[in-house]
Amino acid sequence: MKALTYHGPGRRSWGEVPDPVILDPEDAVVRVDAVTICGTDLHILKGDVPEVTDGRILGHEAVGTVIETGPGVRTLAPGDRVLVSCISACGRCAYCRTGTYGQCTGGGGWILGHLTDGTQAEYVRTPFADNSLHKLPQGLNDETALLLADILPTAFEVGVRNGHVSPGDTVVIVGAGPIGLAAITTARLYSPAKIIAIDLATTRLDAARRAGADAVLTVADATDDAIRALSPDGLGADVAIEAVGLPDSFEQCTRIVRPGGRVANVGVHGKPATLHLESLWIRNVTITTGLVDTSSTPLLLDMLAAGQLDVAGLVTHRFGLDEMQDAYDVFADAGQNGALKVALFRT
Amino acid sequence: MKALTYHGPGRRSWGEVPDPVILDPEDAVVRVDAVTICGTDLHILKGDVPEVTDGRILGHEAVGTVIETGPGVRTLAPGDRVLVSCISACGRCAYCRTGTYGQCTGGGGWILGHLTDGTQAEYVRTPFADNSLHKLPQGLNDETALLLADILPTAFEVGVRNGHVSPGDTVVIVGAGPIGLAAITTARLYSPAKIIAIDLATTRLDAARRAGADAVLTVADATDDAIRALSPDGLGADVAIEAVGLPDSFEQCTRIVRPGGRVANVGVHGKPATLHLESLWIRNVTITTGLVDTSSTPLLLDMLAAGQLDVAGLVTHRFGLDEMQDAYDVFADAGQNGALKVALFRT
Repeated sequence: MKALTYHGPGRRSWGEVPDPVILDPEDAVVRVDAVTICGTDLHILKGDVPEVTDGRILGHEAVGTVIETGPGVRTLAPGDRVLVSCISACGRCAYCRTGTYGQCTGGGGWILGHLTDGTQAEYVRTPFADNSLHKLPQGLNDETALLLADILPTAFEVGVRNGHVSPGDTVVIVGAGPIGLAAITTARLYSPAKIIAIDLATTRLDAARRAGADAVLTVADATDDAIRALSPDGLGADVAIEAVGLPDSFEQCTRIVRPGGRVANVGVHGKPATLHLESLWIRNVTITTGLVDTSSTPLLLDMLAAGQLDVAGLVTHRFGLDEMQDAYDVFADAGQNGALKVALFRT
Repeated sequence: MKALTYHGPGRRSWGEVPDPVILDPEDAVVRVDAVTICGTDLHILKGDVPEVTDGRILGHEAVGTVIETGPGVRTLAPGDRVLVSCISACGRCAYCRTGTYGQCTGGGGWILGHLTDGTQAEYVRTPFADNSLHKLPQGLNDETALLLADILPTAFEVGVRNGHVSPGDTVVIVGAGPIGLAAITTARLYSPAKIIAIDLATTRLDAARRAGADAVLTVADATDDAIRALSPDGLGADVAIEAVGLPDSFEQCTRIVRPGGRVANVGVHGKPATLHLESLWIRNVTITTGLVDTSSTPLLLDMLAAGQLDVAGLVTHRFGLDEMQDAYDVFADAGQNGALKVALFRT
C-alpha cells in the first residue's frame, strides 16, 4: 500500500510500504476512507517529538471501514464504518479505568503515527480496536466525522474543560488554527461573555469570527494591555487557552490571565517556557497541560450528529489520498494560504 | 514605639518609630502581644519582593489586643483579643465577595508588612478591621493562635486544597519548614496513603516525621527516581507541594508528579523557573500558584480550639519582643539550628 512516512526532521515521503496485518488478537485493520493532517504532524516534522523514529507512518486521525478484526475483537466486524481516534485505549490499566485514556499505561494512549504506524496510509492497524474505534452513525459524513478524531475532543477536553470555561467568562484563545477554532466552538457551549481570538493570520481571525469569537486581534495588536482592556474590569482573562505550542504564546497566556484565572495549554511544545513565578506565585493562577483522553468523543459524536455543533468551514482544502504531499505543503503553509483543516479522501 | 524596619536588601533595624494612629474609619490599632517571623520576611530581606520600600515595618502575623477602633468598625471594641491575619479584606470588591480575600482589589490583600506597616512592632494599625481581624476564644493560647495568622491557612488552602489532596494519594512535600510541616498536618485531614517530606535539614525531617510524614528524604537522597519509587506504581506523586520558593524545587515537583497529578506551589519566588512544556504538554499536569485567602481561618480556628489539629513542636524558639533582631538571626539560620517557627511575646 501507499503511506506517508517520516524520515527525521524535515523529511517525509509518500510511497509503497507493506500492508498492515493483525499482530494482536485485539487489533483491527481499517481501510482509510478519509484522513487529515494535524498540527502535531508538523511538530513531529520539526523534530519536536523525538519518540517518532525513521520510517514511521504518520497520522492519528481517520474515518474508515473495518477490513479485518483479530479474534479478541467483540464489538466490531468487517464492513463497519468507524472513527479512528487519535487515542487508543487498552481499557484495563488504572488510567483507562478512570477514563484517562490519553495516559494509558497498557500500551495505548497516543500511539498511532507516534509509536506505531498511523493513518496517513491506505490501511492502518488499530490496536485495542474495541476501545479505540468508534462506530459512526449513517447521518454523519466522513469529512465532518474526521473532526472528531482529534481536534474537537482535544479543544473541548484540554482547552475548554481543563480551563473550566464558565458562564460570563472572558476567554482568550491564543492561536486560531483548527484547534483554536474548535475551542471557540466548544467554549460557546458554556456561554462565556466574551471570546477573544488571537492569531498571526487575518484569514484565521476571519474564521474565528465565523466560529463565534466576539473580538479578534492580530499578534501585532495583541499587547498584554490591549487584551486586558477587553475584559470587563481590565484585569484580564478568566481563561486563557494556548493553542499554538510556542514559549511566547504560552508566556503571554500566563501574563494576561486575571488573578484566580486559568491557563489551559493545548499546544504541542518542543521547547521549555519561562514560568515567571516571581510574579505568578501570588496570583492564584492555575495552569493545566494535557493530552486528550477522548472520553468526550461519544458525547461530541452525538452532538455533531444532532447538529448541535457548527463546524462548517473548518475543512478548507480537499485532496485525493495520493495527493498527500501536496496536502502537507498546503497545510504547512497555512499562515499564507488560509488553510485550516485539510481532508484527504480515498479515490 | 519600637519596630523592625526594612532598609533595602539585607538591611533591617529595630528602633523607635512613630506610634500608629487611626487613618481610616475602618481601622483598628492593635497592641501586639505575640508576633512571629515568616519565611516571606526573609524573602523580602533577600530583595525578592521589590514592592517593599525603605522604612517599612515588616511582619504580617500577630495575636494582640484591640486598643482603638475607628468609627466605622462595628464588630470589635477596645480590649478584644484578636488574631491579626496576614490578609486584610475590604469586604466589598468582586474578589472579597467570592471569598478570594488574598486578591482583594479594594485596598486589602497581603498589605501588612508589605504595602503598609506590619506587626513586628509594639502596635499595628490594621485596615478593614471587621473583615481582617478574627476574635479569639479564651481557650486558645497566643502561641498556638499565632500559627493561624499565616502558616496554617496558607499550607491548607494553597498547598493541600489547591493540590486536591485526596484519600489514598501519594503526596510529596518539598520543604519541611513551618509551611511544609503545616502542609503535612493539614494534608492528613484528607487521609492520603503516604506523605513524603524532603528537606536539606535532618532536624526538619525529624519534625516532618513527628507531624505525620510517612517517609522523609534529604535533598541529597531525593533523586527523581528515589521519589517515584516511593509511589505504589512507581509513576510518581499524585500531589507535589512546593514549600521552598526556589526554581530547582519547583522544577523537581513538575518532574516527580505522575501523569494527571497536581503541583501546588506555596513557595514565595524571586526568580523565574523553567517549565519543561516539551515533556509536560502531554502529561495532564495541573500547576497552581496562590496567595492564601484566609477563607479557611475560621474553620481552622475552630479545629485548633477543639484540639483537632496537632501543632505541637512548630514553635521552637521564644523571645521577648525587644529581642527581635536575635529572633531574626535564629530564624535566618534555621537550617543549622533546627529552628522552625519563632515566637516573640510582649514583656
